[in-house]
Amino acid sequence: MKPTNDTFLRALLRQPTEYTPIWLMRQAGRYLPEYNATRKRAGSFLALAQSPDLATEVTMQPVDRYPLDAAILFSDILTVPDAMGLGLHFVDGEGPRFARPVRSEADVAALAAPDPEDRLRYVMDAVRSIRGALAGRIPLIGFSGSPWTLACYMVEGGGSDDFRTVKEMLYRRPDLMQRILDVNVRAVTDYLNAQIRAGAQAVMIFDTWGGVLADPAFRAFSLDPMTRVVQGLQREAEGERVPCIVFTKGGGVWLEDLAQTGADAVGVDWTVDLGRARARIGGRCALQGNLDPMALLAGAEPACAEARRILDSFGDPQRGDGTWDGHVFNLGHGISQFTDPEAVAALVETVHAHSRGLRGRGA
Amino acid sequence: MKPTNDTFLRALLRQPTEYTPIWLMRQAGRYLPEYNATRKRAGSFLALAQSPDLATEVTMQPVDRYPLDAAILFSDILTVPDAMGLGLHFVDGEGPRFARPVRSEADVAALAAPDPEDRLRYVMDAVRSIRGALAGRIPLIGFSGSPWTLACYMVEGGGSDDFRTVKEMLYRRPDLMQRILDVNVRAVTDYLNAQIRAGAQAVMIFDTWGGVLADPAFRAFSLDPMTRVVQGLQREAEGERVPCIVFTKGGGVWLEDLAQTGADAVGVDWTVDLGRARARIGGRCALQGNLDPMALLAGAEPACAEARRILDSFGDPQRGDGTWDGHVFNLGHGISQFTDPEAVAALVETVHAHSRGLRGRGA
Repeated sequence: MKPTNDTFLRALLRQPTEYTPIWLMRQAGRYLPEYNATRKRAGSFLALAQSPDLATEVTMQPVDRYPLDAAILFSDILTVPDAMGLGLHFVDGEGPRFARPVRSEADVAALAAPDPEDRLRYVMDAVRSIRGALAGRIPLIGFSGSPWTLACYMVEGGGSDDFRTVKEMLYRRPDLMQRILDVNVRAVTDYLNAQIRAGAQAVMIFDTWGGVLADPAFRAFSLDPMTRVVQGLQREAEGERVPCIVFTKGGGVWLEDLAQTGADAVGVDWTVDLGRARARIGGRCALQGNLDPMALLAGAEPACAEARRILDSFGDPQRGDGTWDGHVFNLGHGISQFTDPEAVAALVETVHAHSRGLRGRGA
Repeated sequence: MKPTNDTFLRALLRQPTEYTPIWLMRQAGRYLPEYNATRKRAGSFLALAQSPDLATEVTMQPVDRYPLDAAILFSDILTVPDAMGLGLHFVDGEGPRFARPVRSEADVAALAAPDPEDRLRYVMDAVRSIRGALAGRIPLIGFSGSPWTLACYMVEGGGSDDFRTVKEMLYRRPDLMQRILDVNVRAVTDYLNAQIRAGAQAVMIFDTWGGVLADPAFRAFSLDPMTRVVQGLQREAEGERVPCIVFTKGGGVWLEDLAQTGADAVGVDWTVDLGRARARIGGRCALQGNLDPMALLAGAEPACAEARRILDSFGDPQRGDGTWDGHVFNLGHGISQFTDPEAVAALVETVHAHSRGLRGRGA
């Protein structure tokens, strides 16, 4: 069943839209006082992410506050390796850590893709619960980290500045790395398909760390596994197409390659000019992006000026021949916790208003 | 006067070379036991960088150990803002900090380009001393941070994960940011010209943080100031051309723009395939790069395999019409402190040997 407002889905499928839809990566986050209140009640980030009720509550907060065109499941990209038994926990001020990182041949041999209906059932429960709360207003996006991005955390055992451990394995034992990625391809595919069955109306694959790889390593260890995930996705549910977005942060040099994964849309960060990105791949895929989240810290006026510039750079989504290209407005990275919620209100309004004015001007 | 081995200079100027020259960013660094011994004697990193004798000693260590094709001045990119009076110091485990970061309108108004022959005289003394120690064997590279990269440290007051403070200023007060950059353009130009007068035979501008900017911000705040520096450089000394290299880390999407700065060579990080980079700009500029320094951590064999792949990707530097393109082998970032010095020896040998074999094969 189509949501009442399906502008986001139409933009992803390169169908006509009256305005450019907008949602924001990490829109349910620490810049919102109501999020901080719920998180405090939950006790910890993990408790928040693992409670379907609380995940529903925080997912709804930004879409109740702003006229956003999509909701995104509140969860964490590390739920999958956690369900593999690696022991996810959060160290204050240091981010996520795994108690049992994947380092040895034996560690790799012991890895298996988790059954998403079992150890990740709380995520599917959250998807169902959020769909209920949304009551058909706007679509719900499901998501996962990419196989490579999950592998980074699994091998490093947490975040990293230089990805020393995972790259050392990649260069020394590409066979081991491929085995991890094979498991992750299965795990991510199953996880996203379970989210789609539970009610996700679009899915996004976050390849947060693809951009740290050398060109051939990106192709072998990030792009190829991600392509296999996209190929394995169930692309229809409830009688509707379920669009898929791939996003490699720092992947501007690989746009043409990302457009060939089979995804409906490619996310781009702010280093890429959107008009040039459209010229490169707009005829094959929709684009999602690409405001620098730091522009919002300067306040409503500079952020809205940047948003207008981005929309102008993409131009009228309708081509001269009457066909449409697609643009979903977003940030190029998660919203900063230091963002003023009022600046977000102004941004959403500006994107909607300014993009209506671009329609009919000619691409 | 030409150095005995001027292969590096010829490659930068796209002249015939018998093999592909190699040097490594941060080649005088903590992976070398002899460097650590000198640093210990110096007492601190700053004392090491500020002593012309000790800077000469560590500059010579890698070129005495390996048959590298260039030496690079041992110094720090923050010498210039330090000479502006911002109070550089190093906090253990946290990197550089400025006691007086540039935040307010008054801070910006008080900024002035330092006279490089006065407060940066120790750098020029080091250049002269290193030239003496090199005794004409190989060329000496001088360097500076780019105006934007220096501004990042000056405004943030140190390193940053998100460049929140400097980007907030950029979006809120582009006029203030431009004033800082104007001062930095003058300062960097004067600094590099003083190094050239003191004996630097090539210069490199490190735009370490250009890649964090949105496309139009990169053009206005990183590329344009860097271009003004290149245009202001003294390009001849001792009767020889002094080549200039610009390197924006994460700048793969802007190669064509970097090639138009007037620089002789563009540095590229490992995300860019060198063959494709050559197709994009090889006819206008030499290329420098682009091994992932993490490949060296996996040991000599995987690092050398990567090096051969990179050389093969560039191909025979001589084109079908008899003219030459230029390639200087390097890393895409500074060498890791965890590198085995033996792996570096193997890398240098492999680059020299393998690249000789590529000559005459046809581009």
